[in-house]
Amino acid sequence: MSRSKAVGVLGGMGPAATVDLMQRVIAATPASDDCDHIRMLVDNNPKVPSRIKALIEKTGPSPVPVLTAMAQQLVAQGADFLAMPCNTAHHFYAELASAVDVPFLNITELVAKRIAISQPAARRVGLLASSALSQIRLYEPSFDTRNIEAVYPEASQQTELMALIQAIKANGGERCGYAALQNSAEALEAAGVDCLLIACTELSVVSEQLRSALPFYDAADILAQEIVTYAATD
Amino acid sequence: MSRSKAVGVLGGMGPAATVDLMQRVIAATPASDDCDHIRMLVDNNPKVPSRIKALIEKTGPSPVPVLTAMAQQLVAQGADFLAMPCNTAHHFYAELASAVDVPFLNITELVAKRIAISQPAARRVGLLASSALSQIRLYEPSFDTRNIEAVYPEASQQTELMALIQAIKANGGERCGYAALQNSAEALEAAGVDCLLIACTELSVVSEQLRSALPFYDAADILAQEIVTYAATD
Repeated sequence: MSRSKAVGVLGGMGPAATVDLMQRVIAATPASDDCDHIRMLVDNNPKVPSRIKALIEKTGPSPVPVLTAMAQQLVAQGADFLAMPCNTAHHFYAELASAVDVPFLNITELVAKRIAISQPAARRVGLLASSALSQIRLYEPSFDTRNIEAVYPEASQQTELMALIQAIKANGGERCGYAALQNSAEALEAAGVDCLLIACTELSVVSEQLRSALPFYDAADILAQEIVTYAATD
Repeated sequence: MSRSKAVGVLGGMGPAATVDLMQRVIAATPASDDCDHIRMLVDNNPKVPSRIKALIEKTGPSPVPVLTAMAQQLVAQGADFLAMPCNTAHHFYAELASAVDVPFLNITELVAKRIAISQPAARRVGLLASSALSQIRLYEPSFDTRNIEAVYPEASQQTELMALIQAIKANGGERCGYAALQNSAEALEAAGVDCLLIACTELSVVSEQLRSALPFYDAADILAQEIVTYAATD
């Protein structure tokens, strides 16, 4: 049996996105039997107060108290480090990370680092993400220090993208069409971005639908790879 | 937000099978947004001592202490009831269920009840499962009281089926062929069974590969449906 750290996953935002992350972790783990895989302690909690309602519509409570309790319970259960497969919820990253005494992977830092290493000349990154991201400027701090600019779809395309995200939250993405994803990607390409970034874990669930000549990165996949790498460290 | 009970999942046996169960639960839940889904507290623990080594090869430790600790931690974390997506591990069901004070769904009882209701004339059920199941006679107590007989593939086919199960545990099933599943199903059909039962959660991961004219049941799917039903009860 290979030794490895256990990851605690603050999940359920949405539930299908968390399952997608788990599949990516399993697929990225070299294994010849059950015991070679990583222990994942997962709180797939779809009752976390809506990030959209709290941040954009300003009508709902902060998700921080629930997320903090989840993080602390996962650590109590034996999680050696934490990860959260929801880009938008990383708006609360600093508060959550300071509430536990184990490492907490930071999706925006991991993504920015990956883009800077694998495509050092990239200056403009097109974001396929929730409407919340441009408003809270989630990626800008991690991008700014690396001289990268976040480029967003125009409003009407962003609205369609948001409808697709809601459909994936509702039914796991099986019954919706994916035109909104493709249309936004093509518009960003026409706007001259150097690469695309899927920065919403719901969109990661359907990322294999995207066709683009541009390099594209998927925040959920980068997070999954880092979970596998970090779990193997001493 | 719809209220619902939280399920605790004793998972990781194997990891892909647990992810498969979660997907089935999400797909079976009527939902229009995240909050309509069920909270799943999941310990996807691939380090649970091997059921095969403990029960068949008699070379490994009992998984009961680890499974008991997992069950109790999930209850402490807030699970209102428990489920375990591994047929073989239900050999230890009575011990585990008695170690917690919340309901613990019993996969063999759920499956036997479903077959008896939906196909009351069925007398012989062909099992597509781990080699352990015939040796520990896992389903026989639940079947016997309903006058149902469990029929197993012959030894050489069972060996091939076991190799497929191991491949799914190793790599999630993406790189293996599925001939062993189909061959065993056809042989059971030729032996005159009334229906087929996929009674291994690894085989459930690839159950859509199975083609059969017989009615077939999937223990993981029956468990997922019961999780959704039970979570909605008061």
